Amino acid sequence: MAAASQPVLALSGGVGGAKLALGLADVLAPGQLHVLTNTGDDFRHLGLDICPDIDTLLYTLSGRANQTLGWGLEGETWQTMTALEELGGETWFRLGDRDLATHLWRTRQLKSGMRLSAFTAALAVRLGIASHIHPMTDDPVRTMVHTDRGDLPFQHYFVRDRCEPPVTGFSFDGISAAHPNREVMRLLQRKAFGRVVVCPSNPFVSVDPILQLPGLWLALRESPAPVVVVSPIVAGLAIKGPAAKMMAEMGMGVSALDVARHYCQRYPGLMDCFVIDQSDATLAAEIGELGVTVAVTSTVMKSRADKRALARFTLQLSGS
Amino acid sequence: MAAASQPVLALSGGVGGAKLALGLADVLAPGQLHVLTNTGDDFRHLGLDICPDIDTLLYTLSGRANQTLGWGLEGETWQTMTALEELGGETWFRLGDRDLATHLWRTRQLKSGMRLSAFTAALAVRLGIASHIHPMTDDPVRTMVHTDRGDLPFQHYFVRDRCEPPVTGFSFDGISAAHPNREVMRLLQRKAFGRVVVCPSNPFVSVDPILQLPGLWLALRESPAPVVVVSPIVAGLAIKGPAAKMMAEMGMGVSALDVARHYCQRYPGLMDCFVIDQSDATLAAEIGELGVTVAVTSTVMKSRADKRALARFTLQLSGS
Repeated sequence: MAAASQPVLALSGGVGGAKLALGLADVLAPGQLHVLTNTGDDFRHLGLDICPDIDTLLYTLSGRANQTLGWGLEGETWQTMTALEELGGETWFRLGDRDLATHLWRTRQLKSGMRLSAFTAALAVRLGIASHIHPMTDDPVRTMVHTDRGDLPFQHYFVRDRCEPPVTGFSFDGISAAHPNREVMRLLQRKAFGRVVVCPSNPFVSVDPILQLPGLWLALRESPAPVVVVSPIVAGLAIKGPAAKMMAEMGMGVSALDVARHYCQRYPGLMDCFVIDQSDATLAAEIGELGVTVAVTSTVMKSRADKRALARFTLQLSGS
Repeated sequence: MAAASQPVLALSGGVGGAKLALGLADVLAPGQLHVLTNTGDDFRHLGLDICPDIDTLLYTLSGRANQTLGWGLEGETWQTMTALEELGGETWFRLGDRDLATHLWRTRQLKSGMRLSAFTAALAVRLGIASHIHPMTDDPVRTMVHTDRGDLPFQHYFVRDRCEPPVTGFSFDGISAAHPNREVMRLLQRKAFGRVVVCPSNPFVSVDPILQLPGLWLALRESPAPVVVVSPIVAGLAIKGPAAKMMAEMGMGVSALDVARHYCQRYPGLMDCFVIDQSDATLAAEIGELGVTVAVTSTVMKSRADKRALARFTLQLSGS
């Protein structure tokens, strides 16, 4: 098992992944958590550079996340959106007044030539976050959702069209030319991480864009740190978001087993341990046949205590 | 005198000019007022396309202007600015939450290829404005203020540096390649306007950029409509803004006479009538020697009634 002092690398998308990231930040020493974050959902909207998953992590880890909405900032107001509606403007993507400050400042700083990773690091410090939030890349990668209504940029599929169009597949524009986050690659090459945790994020639109960055998943596989994946599918349902719906539409089964198969087939030898919910305990044997250690616990994170418990559980797994 | 049914063209900058524009809109039949608006103060800030003078006119003519602040929207809130301050962002240019909607929507529409003139016209309709607000050009023109601290973009001089650096002159980047507003040029060529009113805006940074667009002031001079200029300097003071300070710094006298001289020297034969405040009545004879008709009235617009009275006064002048 990794020494307690070694940093941990978590791979995360938005809301679901941020829950476990918060648990990990709580139970690790300050500064020991590194979160490699999906940027495939990023987009430019109303002239602004918007990074939904990075912001969800920033807001969650700084204690600013809106608990009621499940996204955005606590205590948010909506004056700009109300005014934009009055002007006949585009309001399908809801931008809160306080949230807008993040996008305005990021847009300004990126236009001035700052890297997204440097901006994100500076903002995390400003918000008092001890953990390191790394965009998966500083280069533009854009997740396209293939549907029976054509290819849709992710936010158009996810927010504007409310995940309604049946999905046939995904692609990640720009990914073959994108460089994985330099700091994370450097730490991987130095064997700095004691453990890699793939958060219970959507495998197709949150984790795959990260793992498919050139060289990244092979670097994770070569790293001595065990790779622990937490299933986002519990009892055949996605806790949050369209993962289950996508799996059904693509003709996959909808279970933790099918998630495990996806990771084993797409990234052979990467995953050391797969964490499933106790409600899926009957799948353990079949998942084990894929050649991974299966760990069973309660993976549904409602309270802060749930998040910490799952974090502790993933950190105690040896994967051996 | 022009027929009452003929449209009127007003040239305007921001706050000072918008007051008279509001008076003109009040006393003319709906749709008869055309305002050609300075865009030299426009700038890109935090990724947004901001047009301060156009917005002042939109907000003033739609009854949304903030009476207390003297700029921006009535009932404005400042959540985004507060949040931006917390992030350590740039907050010297105050953007209200509701005002932001205008900039976001404009930035989006211009990026999509819409012309500024078309966007402005659409927004005016949306806000219920019967008058026509025309940007002086759809091309980028940027007023640079020459100071003893170097050349400053206008908003940096005006807002960030609070007009403190002593001024030595002005230039308008991009002006020689800019096309004057097409609709206004078309109406001028058709001799459609019954009168041209130059509002009491800053001669150097609000009116000069408009008049120096290629072909514009000559088209105004050739038009049969009398050109009436209202002095922005009253009793040696500017009602609003840095005009008087600029004149002193550039070694000019600071009086309505010096404003009249500026227009006569720079645009010979353009001005038919010059309107001065009653407190400057003693200057009338000397101004008359410049070859213009001088009209004396109360030009300080505090109430709505003041605005209407000055508007009626300018419309009744024959300039002959």
